[in-house]
Amino acid sequence: MTSSSRIAVDAMGGDEGLAVMLAGVARARRQYNDAKFLLVGDEEAIRGGLKNHPGLSAASEVVHAAEVVRSDEKPSQALRRARTTSMGIAVDLVKRGEAAAAVSSGNTGALMAMAKLSLRTMPGIDRPALAALLPSLGETDLVMLDLGANAECDTRNLVQFAVMGAAYARTALELESPRVALLNIGTEEQKGIESIRDAAAQLRAATHLPLTFNGYIEGDRLSRGEVDVVVCDGFSGNIALKTAEGTARFVADLLKRAFRSSVRSKVGFLISRPATELLRDQLDPNNHNGAVFLGLNGLVVKSHGGANELGVATAIGVAAKMVRDDLTRRISDNLRNFEAEAA
Amino acid sequence: MTSSSRIAVDAMGGDEGLAVMLAGVARARRQYNDAKFLLVGDEEAIRGGLKNHPGLSAASEVVHAAEVVRSDEKPSQALRRARTTSMGIAVDLVKRGEAAAAVSSGNTGALMAMAKLSLRTMPGIDRPALAALLPSLGETDLVMLDLGANAECDTRNLVQFAVMGAAYARTALELESPRVALLNIGTEEQKGIESIRDAAAQLRAATHLPLTFNGYIEGDRLSRGEVDVVVCDGFSGNIALKTAEGTARFVADLLKRAFRSSVRSKVGFLISRPATELLRDQLDPNNHNGAVFLGLNGLVVKSHGGANELGVATAIGVAAKMVRDDLTRRISDNLRNFEAEAA
Repeated sequence: MTSSSRIAVDAMGGDEGLAVMLAGVARARRQYNDAKFLLVGDEEAIRGGLKNHPGLSAASEVVHAAEVVRSDEKPSQALRRARTTSMGIAVDLVKRGEAAAAVSSGNTGALMAMAKLSLRTMPGIDRPALAALLPSLGETDLVMLDLGANAECDTRNLVQFAVMGAAYARTALELESPRVALLNIGTEEQKGIESIRDAAAQLRAATHLPLTFNGYIEGDRLSRGEVDVVVCDGFSGNIALKTAEGTARFVADLLKRAFRSSVRSKVGFLISRPATELLRDQLDPNNHNGAVFLGLNGLVVKSHGGANELGVATAIGVAAKMVRDDLTRRISDNLRNFEAEAA
Repeated sequence: MTSSSRIAVDAMGGDEGLAVMLAGVARARRQYNDAKFLLVGDEEAIRGGLKNHPGLSAASEVVHAAEVVRSDEKPSQALRRARTTSMGIAVDLVKRGEAAAAVSSGNTGALMAMAKLSLRTMPGIDRPALAALLPSLGETDLVMLDLGANAECDTRNLVQFAVMGAAYARTALELESPRVALLNIGTEEQKGIESIRDAAAQLRAATHLPLTFNGYIEGDRLSRGEVDVVVCDGFSGNIALKTAEGTARFVADLLKRAFRSSVRSKVGFLISRPATELLRDQLDPNNHNGAVFLGLNGLVVKSHGGANELGVATAIGVAAKMVRDDLTRRISDNLRNFEAEAA
């Protein structure tokens, strides 16, 4: 493995602390056993933590960073300290070609600002978008973007997200002409807000795009497997994603209550336990952690701030797979081909 | 029961047709057996349908309407035909004091436009908002608004929704100082979009309001029972509500698959069936149907377009309870008292 396929990890980001980050990276290393890491953060603390993970220790270098981006810090403020923070240095390692990807569980807005400034957007893309693969009843996962990088988006952003999301689905999910829909509050043409209606008109007219535009989709049909890519502004996307997580947990809590409501249901629960545990795994957000900033000249993966060891490992896995499959270059080629065709 | 406590039902709205509407109203009548109805729509069709519901027939009058608002019709277009449509006539019966409430499963935008034009907003309220009581892990249900009446909202709208939502919670849930939060994509002060940050600043400063302002809430904590009222624009609210519905169904589908995955889990399922059926009932959106337009001088309840017989009955029940408890007047008094105190 060349030095350019190492993964830079912001070891200090995340609400759960350094120990959980290191345990997560160690777990990912056991799965992707040719992966190498650059662990960025307080050198002494990281070296101390690595004593519990000899395998990871052998596969890692430590890169010292004196400061940490706080979760309540304004992106503009964090940006000024980029060169001294673990987040900023991790992103910079990608820019300088010393790492193939950066992973952080820190402040989303700050990570977006640093990634955009340092790596710049691909030609034809104004703003990067956070995309994730989410579970669905369909044959493949669902690509959804933007999940929170851009709270407000105009028509142009939405159309670009559709093109980037389709490129991601073509490469990551191997779909030839992904079915793309815009998230809206109704399926009739005149529904919703102007930017979405205009984006729909443009996507409907752009028949040369290597995607199948399916119009609007509402929140209740996201996971039905009817589309491959869902496009929205970062505000609605984040609301939808978190509401889905919260509802899954709510249903699981109600189910627990229901199973505890009588001796009979407790017995039934014990018997069907393997099935319900399988379900619990499917729904655990830590098993779907790791959103990718699409549209940048380099790979940055955002891990959930509250991710546990499993969640961190999943996010590292997203980066490792994208590096292995060379997805950033392939998405970029895919976008360039489309531009060439459109020209 | 006086004539002014009758409920006007738009019998022609809804995707499921007249038969389902009538079956739903008949079901509600069996539960609220002193309720009287004005069934608005095609007289001949309604009289034909009523032959299957002698009990409802005795408790109803039929009001003829020649036209129906289509689900894909623009609100402005529907508004011009208000006087001849079943929806418009149902709303007008409330205005003329012949009914205490109107219920429709038709086009939300058209219903909002007709209700606003005919009934006008309460003093101090610019736009009505769609509010519903949603299930939560807390001691009471959760009030959430706006759920889709206003796709775009400014700071002033959001602050008014907070005050109206709190008045609804004080009267319907009997909470003295409801805990109110704004839906956002982070909990730190600087998160989200400007209108929400400004609304938060105003609500934080308005210490005279009979509510406890709890700042921001994210989508994953909506049903945790930590707040009583969640305020948002109609676009995000509709996305959150529908995503929650879709996710609950998704989890139920996965659970079904899991239970079918082995003989062992099938046996466990059969034994614990009463518990899982209880859960299915708790999660069925038809059991939570019926959103109220808050802020109008009259009561209009929106039933889900795809509601089944149970769903229609639940929405009629929301109207019947609000009429019985005189909630529209009490919310109006509550808002007026707050204005007097603030003056």
